[in-house]
Amino acid sequence: MLDTLDLDLSLDKTTYRSQIETLMENLRSLQQACWEKKLPVIVVLEGWAAAGKGALVKKMVGYMDPRGFAVHPIWPPSPEEQKYPFLWRFWQKLPARGSIGFFYHSWYIHVLEDRLFERVKEGEVPMVMQHINAFERQLVDDGVAIAKFWIHLSQKELKQRLKKYASDSLQSWRVRPEDWQQEKNYDKYVALAEEMLVHTSTGPSPWTLVEGDCQRWAKVKVLTQLSATITEALDRLHYRTPTPIIPPQEQLNPSEPNLLAQVDLNQSLSRTEYKKELLREQVRLRKLQQSIYEQQIPILILFEGWDAAGKGGAIKRLTDVLDPRSYKVNAFAAPTDEEKARQYLWRFWRRLPTAGTIGIFDRSWYGRVLVERVEGFATETEWRRAYQEINEFEAQLSSDGYVLVKFWLHISQEQQLERFQERENDSFKQYKLTSEDWRNREKWPLYEVAVNQAIQRTSTPTAPWTLIAANDKYYARVKVIQTVTDAIRRKLKNR
Amino acid sequence: MLDTLDLDLSLDKTTYRSQIETLMENLRSLQQACWEKKLPVIVVLEGWAAAGKGALVKKMVGYMDPRGFAVHPIWPPSPEEQKYPFLWRFWQKLPARGSIGFFYHSWYIHVLEDRLFERVKEGEVPMVMQHINAFERQLVDDGVAIAKFWIHLSQKELKQRLKKYASDSLQSWRVRPEDWQQEKNYDKYVALAEEMLVHTSTGPSPWTLVEGDCQRWAKVKVLTQLSATITEALDRLHYRTPTPIIPPQEQLNPSEPNLLAQVDLNQSLSRTEYKKELLREQVRLRKLQQSIYEQQIPILILFEGWDAAGKGGAIKRLTDVLDPRSYKVNAFAAPTDEEKARQYLWRFWRRLPTAGTIGIFDRSWYGRVLVERVEGFATETEWRRAYQEINEFEAQLSSDGYVLVKFWLHISQEQQLERFQERENDSFKQYKLTSEDWRNREKWPLYEVAVNQAIQRTSTPTAPWTLIAANDKYYARVKVIQTVTDAIRRKLKNR
Repeated sequence: MLDTLDLDLSLDKTTYRSQIETLMENLRSLQQACWEKKLPVIVVLEGWAAAGKGALVKKMVGYMDPRGFAVHPIWPPSPEEQKYPFLWRFWQKLPARGSIGFFYHSWYIHVLEDRLFERVKEGEVPMVMQHINAFERQLVDDGVAIAKFWIHLSQKELKQRLKKYASDSLQSWRVRPEDWQQEKNYDKYVALAEEMLVHTSTGPSPWTLVEGDCQRWAKVKVLTQLSATITEALDRLHYRTPTPIIPPQEQLNPSEPNLLAQVDLNQSLSRTEYKKELLREQVRLRKLQQSIYEQQIPILILFEGWDAAGKGGAIKRLTDVLDPRSYKVNAFAAPTDEEKARQYLWRFWRRLPTAGTIGIFDRSWYGRVLVERVEGFATETEWRRAYQEINEFEAQLSSDGYVLVKFWLHISQEQQLERFQERENDSFKQYKLTSEDWRNREKWPLYEVAVNQAIQRTSTPTAPWTLIAANDKYYARVKVIQTVTDAIRRKLKNR
Repeated sequence: MLDTLDLDLSLDKTTYRSQIETLMENLRSLQQACWEKKLPVIVVLEGWAAAGKGALVKKMVGYMDPRGFAVHPIWPPSPEEQKYPFLWRFWQKLPARGSIGFFYHSWYIHVLEDRLFERVKEGEVPMVMQHINAFERQLVDDGVAIAKFWIHLSQKELKQRLKKYASDSLQSWRVRPEDWQQEKNYDKYVALAEEMLVHTSTGPSPWTLVEGDCQRWAKVKVLTQLSATITEALDRLHYRTPTPIIPPQEQLNPSEPNLLAQVDLNQSLSRTEYKKELLREQVRLRKLQQSIYEQQIPILILFEGWDAAGKGGAIKRLTDVLDPRSYKVNAFAAPTDEEKARQYLWRFWRRLPTAGTIGIFDRSWYGRVLVERVEGFATETEWRRAYQEINEFEAQLSSDGYVLVKFWLHISQEQQLERFQERENDSFKQYKLTSEDWRNREKWPLYEVAVNQAIQRTSTPTAPWTLIAANDKYYARVKVIQTVTDAIRRKLKNR
């Protein structure tokens, strides 16, 4: 693949000058258009050491308004970053709508340099690539324009440049010992790069291979392609077909199981049983907490459920015995404006629990296929796509060692009414009941369809749903803790 | 001081039970009130190892809604955190309005454990305490309620507890080698703690000394004081006197110098001079960049100035020669809602450049005493107080080694009009001109007073203002880069 590149391609100074000026002016107005149309852009620069990536970024930003872009030099992850899935640090750096992010090296170091220096296990490489493809597709589907460049050099040119830089007092500090290794292992590195290019050059975000021996040629090629990518993305915005209005689905399709209806809501515990079992489960959980910490296992427990199903109370009993330094409860209501400016999973990525701690999410990314679907905040295309996005996201967590526990707290419609009325009459609980709760209640059948479909499409072996019969609060609370401790124990056993 | 504490104070179980239940119920409704009134609360727990801080936090959050608080265990700073002023990591963890942040250990480890283990220079301790006092006062002035607890133990009790924990398989992992050092150096540690308590028990945020030998006593005392602190803060909100409406100041006081009027706006460069000098300065800057990186010096350059004074163009010329990986331009317009939920300096703390890089701020914290003052977004009390807050903030940056360069780009009113008209007629620049610019222009005299007073009150030896004559863009651009390179060179010389 890479050997088919004609590295002799070059541009003379005059041609270069006449072309580059137009390209840069063009890029400047494209940046302005991105800003106005709120189009986010990601530019990835990979390639050999000394391939001129720095000079390229400089050229690209040369005509841009510095307030509209950010440059992210990527090094091996810090100890803090290593406590998260490898894509975490890139999610943190995601450009907001309207901005451009330049990644000088990127997530691809995990299948390139990390592979050369054996910092990643060979068996994990296909999975890492799969995660990368999912990551990029999710962003493109969200409207991000991604331009990826592989700047290629011949071995001769690479060696010459490294030598030249090393002998230049202004440049020498940039040549790392690792860079010389690229030259020594040129053929091996080419093979790794080709494998990466083949597997990650996808429809939504293809690689552009750049002949890098002549810097002028490389600059013109990169700028031309970047302009094309942005123009195309802007066009897509322009010609977007309006979403057809689909009447909300009030009933499950005949072929679909009604999982909620299968929950036996009569399950209950007496007060005496409750006290005894709660204590037993809490003690078990407390003991497990030490192992979680020692073995640096990250735990993520998410709660979804009907309004007034008792999420708050269940979370309370769960955290009661935990060391307060070891867990964090995140409640997700309406997104902040910083969150709205990025793909919807961003707000969950930024709140992920770190290794050795427990993250408890009161509501979660399932909002995309529940409230956003029912209320029409997400288009049909968006929420249908979300099942896959969610499964991919959860697979990334699981493969990074996360224990994922997902609860749907189920109650009957009658039970909800009873609790609403109780809240209305209790001055201490009144604040918990809003007019929105009543409105949601009217949409019960719509939610029932959405919940059933969500649970069915996102129950996976490593991230299964647990439906909790919550008409009886005692039963529900004990069951929640039990499910958590069981999941943790399974994890400890299978390590 | 600490030896006056009566460590024999204790509570029997019955009294404890009757008191604690009421206290916890009370704390629960206080949390709800904090949420409703948007009152942020910070709780600091310091004291001996094994003093029961963990159990205390557990007790305090026991009745709370887990969605309204966060617990922050504080360890020695990570390598990333060490690249910022020591308070940076605590600013990052600031609770949003309405939330409660529990700091289990805190910024005080820098004058306590760091001192015992000689990780901080003795000569720097007074300055660190000064920064801490400023930090807390700024927060209290912003409406944060701060409760600080020192949990004291006798040497005998400390030793007993450490031994007990070390022999308990469920607790032993919590006893660090450092904790035994506290016991071995009991008297020295007491002396350090006393010095800390004396210097940081201030009017706005006093310490509460807690007799810790009896855990029941300690719990009741801490909960009682925390309730009192929150109640008081809520009362202050309630009885807040309305801000008197003061007519905006249209002229400087007779005793104040008009610094802007002293700028010679006739200074200019010919195109030939400009090209020559710009190149010279840019080359100098580029060479310095290497030293900045090697010596890990953080640089912060902020731009303020009249609308259309040429900030964008000056920033462009400044960054033109810089390696794009080494700088970041941050433009500050209206704050996001996450930023509005915290003290106004928070948004600048979170964007600080790290050691070895250059942060360029297009507008800055001076908005507090400029636009917020003139437009009435900040009350008179707030903007008057801000001069000191800003000076304290900048002093923290300087003492951490930051090079701080502050520009006011000055133009005449006539020059501004000319540029506005030019922008109106240039389709390419039209987007730069908004109706707000015209409105601001009408308030020129008000801004003139605000700018003059701001510059005068915040020009310090380590963070001086530079007024740039910007009627001539050529002159201004060269002068800006020159000022930056001079500042960096001074820093390199004085290290």
